[in-house]
Amino acid sequence: MAHAHITPSHIHLKWSRNIPPALTVPSGTTLTFSLRDGFNNQITPATTPADLPGLDPAQADPAFGPVFVEGAAPGDVLRVDVLELTPAAYGWTAILPGFGLLSDEFPAPRLKLWDLSAAAATGYAEFKAGIRVPTRPFLGVMGLAPPTDGEFSTVPPYAWGGNIDCRHVTQGASLYLPVQAPGALFSCGDGHAAQGDGEVCGTAIETPMTARLRLTVERGKPWVRSPHYLTPPEPQPPAAWAREYAAVGIDADLREAARKGLRGAMDWLEGEKGLTREEAYMLCSVVADLKIVEAVDMPHYAVACSVPLNIFVHEE
Amino acid sequence: MAHAHITPSHIHLKWSRNIPPALTVPSGTTLTFSLRDGFNNQITPATTPADLPGLDPAQADPAFGPVFVEGAAPGDVLRVDVLELTPAAYGWTAILPGFGLLSDEFPAPRLKLWDLSAAAATGYAEFKAGIRVPTRPFLGVMGLAPPTDGEFSTVPPYAWGGNIDCRHVTQGASLYLPVQAPGALFSCGDGHAAQGDGEVCGTAIETPMTARLRLTVERGKPWVRSPHYLTPPEPQPPAAWAREYAAVGIDADLREAARKGLRGAMDWLEGEKGLTREEAYMLCSVVADLKIVEAVDMPHYAVACSVPLNIFVHEE
Repeated sequence: MAHAHITPSHIHLKWSRNIPPALTVPSGTTLTFSLRDGFNNQITPATTPADLPGLDPAQADPAFGPVFVEGAAPGDVLRVDVLELTPAAYGWTAILPGFGLLSDEFPAPRLKLWDLSAAAATGYAEFKAGIRVPTRPFLGVMGLAPPTDGEFSTVPPYAWGGNIDCRHVTQGASLYLPVQAPGALFSCGDGHAAQGDGEVCGTAIETPMTARLRLTVERGKPWVRSPHYLTPPEPQPPAAWAREYAAVGIDADLREAARKGLRGAMDWLEGEKGLTREEAYMLCSVVADLKIVEAVDMPHYAVACSVPLNIFVHEE
Repeated sequence: MAHAHITPSHIHLKWSRNIPPALTVPSGTTLTFSLRDGFNNQITPATTPADLPGLDPAQADPAFGPVFVEGAAPGDVLRVDVLELTPAAYGWTAILPGFGLLSDEFPAPRLKLWDLSAAAATGYAEFKAGIRVPTRPFLGVMGLAPPTDGEFSTVPPYAWGGNIDCRHVTQGASLYLPVQAPGALFSCGDGHAAQGDGEVCGTAIETPMTARLRLTVERGKPWVRSPHYLTPPEPQPPAAWAREYAAVGIDADLREAARKGLRGAMDWLEGEKGLTREEAYMLCSVVADLKIVEAVDMPHYAVACSVPLNIFVHEE
């Protein structure tokens, strides 16, 4: 099983327990996944903003697999150890109409192409002159077959995983997913070179990715009823710590509080750092974190949107 | 102005622009605030759980002030530099019926008293044998007078501050508040020795606090329309970095996703770490962070509730 390999041909655009396995492996197997990006490589360095309206939205968030893990049964847990993640030499971030936390305020498409060719060596990707984003690759999509028959969209996440877009499951982390169907039927995709908590504009630094993952069946963990994760044992430089500037949104609705916090951080990026509104939205999507700072002081929730200051090359 | 001092006698239990200033100071003044706790010191080390139903809820979240800052006018920003925070030698965390993110699941009161006498030296407070909580003091309440006449409850936060319960505004941080009334009329209170993002059970490590704050009027920052903050220039040991275990809650409602993530982390603390349900709820309130990991993959939001593993003394 040393060469277990999932290729781009093992694509599926729906979650279903009836998709035939691409591979069957014993528990504990390490596999390599060659993954097209979260829009099925429809966007490349040659793409222009004018091309965006012509792209096929039905190809969003493809998953690659599924892998049948021997012995996995409903009630078990599949542990996914993220051993190695290698992004492609390019990535992209887009504002896609109808998608994103402020979609009502951004009707026009925008595209930012990223040069990731030096990121493995430097740990950064340049957003624009003076602003660089620490790269922390992860897979937006890691999931299992659903508990029932039928086809499920790959866009939303589910209790059994899928498009959870959880930036904390980086190289060295482990993800725990509750098995719903015999063999678990694990698939993954949607490589991200960097993202903030929230993925607010709807896209991260999207990139094709090669992933080396180990799949292990675990039992006796009934508390894993949704995705759980364990972060890496060591901090990931250079992003392990950074001073932060943040705006706190306050509202009786938690989602509106998040939107207000995001707008506040964008206001600051425009007013203090000279970004355009669209740049601020896309930059927040790849670096800013939405934190629920209080969820109990009714009737008002408070959500912070924080920007790490180490993205600014000339920051004190 | 070297001895500008706000005492417990300068208490107010509503926000109002008509409260006479306790002090009037020039911009840039450093003040010392001697603060009763977030329940007006009704709970002490002598309190028992049986006493909780008899406490007066109208004394929740008292504010101490207000301080009139000369020159502050609506449209300006009041910068609050948090210079020094000194908690008392004790603290408490309580489950109070009707309050908290899972209030419907915890009808009975609970009380945990904390010994903080060694925390300044060790950086920790003991939750129970084998579990210690990194202390990171901050003030839950920092706010200004409202823009209109009338009395406003001190329990919820507002765009002009108040009970924002934002754990990131620790010693060394700065808070920016949009001035609504002449003189800004700053007040604060609600000392916390530690809290996670969310303050999920409704209380942190509540403690009387002595605070040294500098109040400065700033202009030309129109983007500060709600509380903004800048974290300290250096990480705060020992809590600067920790490996985390987290549960991700997934739901079409953002608040329900947060509740599911919290329940998952509590399930893990019960199942893996042997805590009672009530212990897990209170421990999450003081150490766990609610992170909106994605807010865009409709129709499902994902919120992680993460527990830092450095709280477990014997963790690898």
